[in-house]
Amino acid sequence: MSTHHERLVALRDELYSIQLDGFIVPLTDEHMSEYVGDYAQRLGWLTGFGGSAGTAVVLADKAAIFTDGRYTLQVREQVSADDWDYVAVPAESVTDWLADHVRPGARIGYDPWLHTRSSVEQLREVLADRDATLVAADRNPIDAIWTDRPAPSHARIVVHPDTQAGASSAEKRAIIADWLGDKRADAVVLTALDSIAWTLNVRGADVDHTPVALAYAVVSADGTTDLFVAPEKVDDAVHQHLGNAVRLHDRAAFPAHLQSLADKRVAIDPERAVTAVADAVEAGGGKVVWLRDPAVLAKAIKNQAEIAGHRAASARDGAALTRFLRWAEIECPRGGQTELSAAAKLLAFRQETGLLLDSSFDTISATGAHGASPHYRVTEESNAPIELGQLFLVDSGGQYADGTTDVTRVIPIGRPTDEMRDRFTRVLQGHIAIATAVFPDGTSGAQIDGFARRPLWEAGLDFGHGTGHGIGSYLAVHEGPQRIAAPNYPGGASLEPLRAGMMLSNEPGYYKAGEYGIRIENLLLVEPRTIPGGDPERAMLGFETLTFAPIERDLIDSALLTTGEQAWLNGYHARVLEVIGPQLDEDERRWLAAKCAPIA
Amino acid sequence: MSTHHERLVALRDELYSIQLDGFIVPLTDEHMSEYVGDYAQRLGWLTGFGGSAGTAVVLADKAAIFTDGRYTLQVREQVSADDWDYVAVPAESVTDWLADHVRPGARIGYDPWLHTRSSVEQLREVLADRDATLVAADRNPIDAIWTDRPAPSHARIVVHPDTQAGASSAEKRAIIADWLGDKRADAVVLTALDSIAWTLNVRGADVDHTPVALAYAVVSADGTTDLFVAPEKVDDAVHQHLGNAVRLHDRAAFPAHLQSLADKRVAIDPERAVTAVADAVEAGGGKVVWLRDPAVLAKAIKNQAEIAGHRAASARDGAALTRFLRWAEIECPRGGQTELSAAAKLLAFRQETGLLLDSSFDTISATGAHGASPHYRVTEESNAPIELGQLFLVDSGGQYADGTTDVTRVIPIGRPTDEMRDRFTRVLQGHIAIATAVFPDGTSGAQIDGFARRPLWEAGLDFGHGTGHGIGSYLAVHEGPQRIAAPNYPGGASLEPLRAGMMLSNEPGYYKAGEYGIRIENLLLVEPRTIPGGDPERAMLGFETLTFAPIERDLIDSALLTTGEQAWLNGYHARVLEVIGPQLDEDERRWLAAKCAPIA
Repeated sequence: MSTHHERLVALRDELYSIQLDGFIVPLTDEHMSEYVGDYAQRLGWLTGFGGSAGTAVVLADKAAIFTDGRYTLQVREQVSADDWDYVAVPAESVTDWLADHVRPGARIGYDPWLHTRSSVEQLREVLADRDATLVAADRNPIDAIWTDRPAPSHARIVVHPDTQAGASSAEKRAIIADWLGDKRADAVVLTALDSIAWTLNVRGADVDHTPVALAYAVVSADGTTDLFVAPEKVDDAVHQHLGNAVRLHDRAAFPAHLQSLADKRVAIDPERAVTAVADAVEAGGGKVVWLRDPAVLAKAIKNQAEIAGHRAASARDGAALTRFLRWAEIECPRGGQTELSAAAKLLAFRQETGLLLDSSFDTISATGAHGASPHYRVTEESNAPIELGQLFLVDSGGQYADGTTDVTRVIPIGRPTDEMRDRFTRVLQGHIAIATAVFPDGTSGAQIDGFARRPLWEAGLDFGHGTGHGIGSYLAVHEGPQRIAAPNYPGGASLEPLRAGMMLSNEPGYYKAGEYGIRIENLLLVEPRTIPGGDPERAMLGFETLTFAPIERDLIDSALLTTGEQAWLNGYHARVLEVIGPQLDEDERRWLAAKCAPIA
Repeated sequence: MSTHHERLVALRDELYSIQLDGFIVPLTDEHMSEYVGDYAQRLGWLTGFGGSAGTAVVLADKAAIFTDGRYTLQVREQVSADDWDYVAVPAESVTDWLADHVRPGARIGYDPWLHTRSSVEQLREVLADRDATLVAADRNPIDAIWTDRPAPSHARIVVHPDTQAGASSAEKRAIIADWLGDKRADAVVLTALDSIAWTLNVRGADVDHTPVALAYAVVSADGTTDLFVAPEKVDDAVHQHLGNAVRLHDRAAFPAHLQSLADKRVAIDPERAVTAVADAVEAGGGKVVWLRDPAVLAKAIKNQAEIAGHRAASARDGAALTRFLRWAEIECPRGGQTELSAAAKLLAFRQETGLLLDSSFDTISATGAHGASPHYRVTEESNAPIELGQLFLVDSGGQYADGTTDVTRVIPIGRPTDEMRDRFTRVLQGHIAIATAVFPDGTSGAQIDGFARRPLWEAGLDFGHGTGHGIGSYLAVHEGPQRIAAPNYPGGASLEPLRAGMMLSNEPGYYKAGEYGIRIENLLLVEPRTIPGGDPERAMLGFETLTFAPIERDLIDSALLTTGEQAWLNGYHARVLEVIGPQLDEDERRWLAAKCAPIA
């Protein structure tokens, strides 16, 4: 089937044949992943939407697609208004919309492998309130009509060396076993792909830009583990690495295994596991204990090996980015460069390190007005020439065996306007306010998010996304549980306390629709701080900035900066020269030295 | 029974006789009030604890009392360690403790008129997990043994004039009726005493310092209302004011009325109603719709009449406080004054206004080390002399028919130390950071709370309570839903968006155990702000400071202040002189002028 209209028609026929009056299509996979493999891109296949967050609801006579503020423009470009209503969340939610449009007696279907238990309960309640019924589909009706659906990736699993992981899988599983003891549970089901990769010290290639393998794992109180994965993914080296304590099963054997856990107390993460997992445990007579995946916090608090690895990756990646920034400053004003050609050049610089394994996400190469979409993704169709007078925003990162990077810089093509310099300087002030924050142990990201916004707020401005996200160690570029985020932006507040060893991005921005976008992003490490004269009973934390690349001086109005802010910037640039300089040739180093000269 | 030990023994006998192995004693009443009448002070009667937040759990062989960080010192002084374990929440919760101490098979009782549905479900789940049972008591066993228990107050209800309320009760009930229509509900149960007082434009005197009457109300979709209240409270004037649309019932008839709502959709607030209310509706065949009490947000957003009333009350109250501050500065260094004598003098100054109806809470009159307990309450036993070298902290407020006030100032007795001045100045910087904050519509108090703390954090210091709370209009001194609060302090985060018309306190502090306490508290009004050059699509908000009284210059190290902070302080003191000066005699005015002279 070629057109999205035909696909919608076919889905309605299929729903009719299985006696459903509607179906809910979320954008996730059976692991509740943020980024999903092609085989699971059901929402994109059905609607044409290419964003990374959304849901579709199809009724017999009506269909709606739900996206948040980041994608309101994109969804209108990619999804036909003839077939679809656009709904902006959180203003209106899927449940609100269903409550308004579902007919009494209707049977609305869902795929239990794509929803959490709480979302299913919420949907069921709303539909019951309208005398309608929520029905679990035995098979996803989209899969029934998606004739040329890609097969799940067959990529091999590779061992992630203990030297880089900083702890053996046996040690990690022992920690999880102790945790199970504390919680008086017999086993924990791991469904988050990065939790499985972290726990077993393996990596995969089944999801673009995130080195994870499609698998499930059940860790028992004795530390032994049942791993469910396609057999062809596991070679002898991985076999040996996993050892006898890890029992291998085909991925298809997972549901039956869950049903075999009769009378066991089984820990399941309510946010990271789909309801089908808990359904199977309960169907088999097991008792579900709702607890957060024990790998989540352990993975977020990096150990010394992971931190050292990240420092190496970050220095290497910063040199590649610095060389790109110099290239862009010289080449782009001459004309002939585009968002795609520049992104290719940046990738080439990273590849020249000889250690790049993948990009950590699709590079955001956005010039002029494209920069005003924080999640702009360049395609052959959207590709724009980089022209004088524009701001060129590049948000990119690399996957290296020793670390995952994520950095954003803005390059003025020619001479920036005074407004651009004012806005960039305010974004920089917010970035510095986060980088220099000192706060008590127990403070959450939500509490410091405002520091990044105040310089913009004072000018009647703001940015519509969170200030920072966690990041993995050669894993997902977005990693929980900690974030620097406020409740009224997509994703909501993060009340997770920040702890020494956590890594976060620091990326305030400013976006002027139709004109330009600004974002300054470095990665941070949470570290303990001792403050002379401070309350001895109050443990304090602060940040070390891990990312090194020059911040464009021509975009800074130094008159707006306090002496403290100037001192931070000059100190940062001195470190950039120290870390990056030695990796550059003489011309590049001379250029960087000028970029890093103190301002006053 | 005289001793608390004897009361505990008697409770255990009573539990034995009604076949319970334990009982849970929260500190609240059947309205989930923060401050409760004497008749409902069961926790205080049983344990001797005088704080405003806590829970007791009594088992056959063990008993524990649970309080948060504000009361850890106080509970040790007031409650016998021979009979009670002290448990600090949130470090350990009631459910954690029960999970560790309850015996399999045990029957643990609770009073369904003193717990929300969710807390009951949580308790039930934890106990079930230990093979124990949660049992609803038909009658509270404490009431059975509390022989000299005070009767509920018989105080008369009075009319709160529409001119002061700014809207008639009929108008308010019409708004609630519209809301019921939107929610497709037939009726809403109001159990929060201030919601009932606000909705009906009446006030009472059944709870110390909060002018509310013990009552329940059910507002129907047609706006007519059933009010459940002791008949002797309602005189002809109130009868006339309420009119025919309000049907009067004895308070005792409330449960039977709830059971009569068969097949009705009844809105109940999950946080503000006790489970017995929902239990009764469900027992009668009604359908509970869990929704926030519609009066909560409407009450929090003050109208023009309420704002004008507050300005008048605030100016009047500020003059009384200013005269007290002058008196204290002159008298206290001479010796002979105590926390009680000073509090009495402050009350006298407020009474001289001729319009004081009550204090808005028990005055916190705390000198020296007592100031380090943010919620210190002076008694004959604790009463301390005010001496040279101390900081004297006074947190107090008045109830006037046109408004409720709440203000804190600190007076140095003699010469303050450099450390005191440094700490006071940092607290002032936090206070100014809140007072001058500008933020987008939709921002919550949790997002700006950090502004109040950063000057302290930078010195390795903090304060262990929220930064601000909402306040009523001649109602409760603590009023939701908005707060300026972070998740890791008692009460938790407030993600409620701030809206124009809301009132909040701004009260950062610093507390040095065993030495002194500092707090600077003014009330704020949230107001719209237009910022030239700002994003036209982004509505912004800011604060107007409503409280006027001098902030002690001798405690300010002006060298620490930025020019912007100095400008705020000088501008504030100019307004204090403008608003308060004309209400003072010549000597007082001369003194105030000196106190309000610009600093540089």
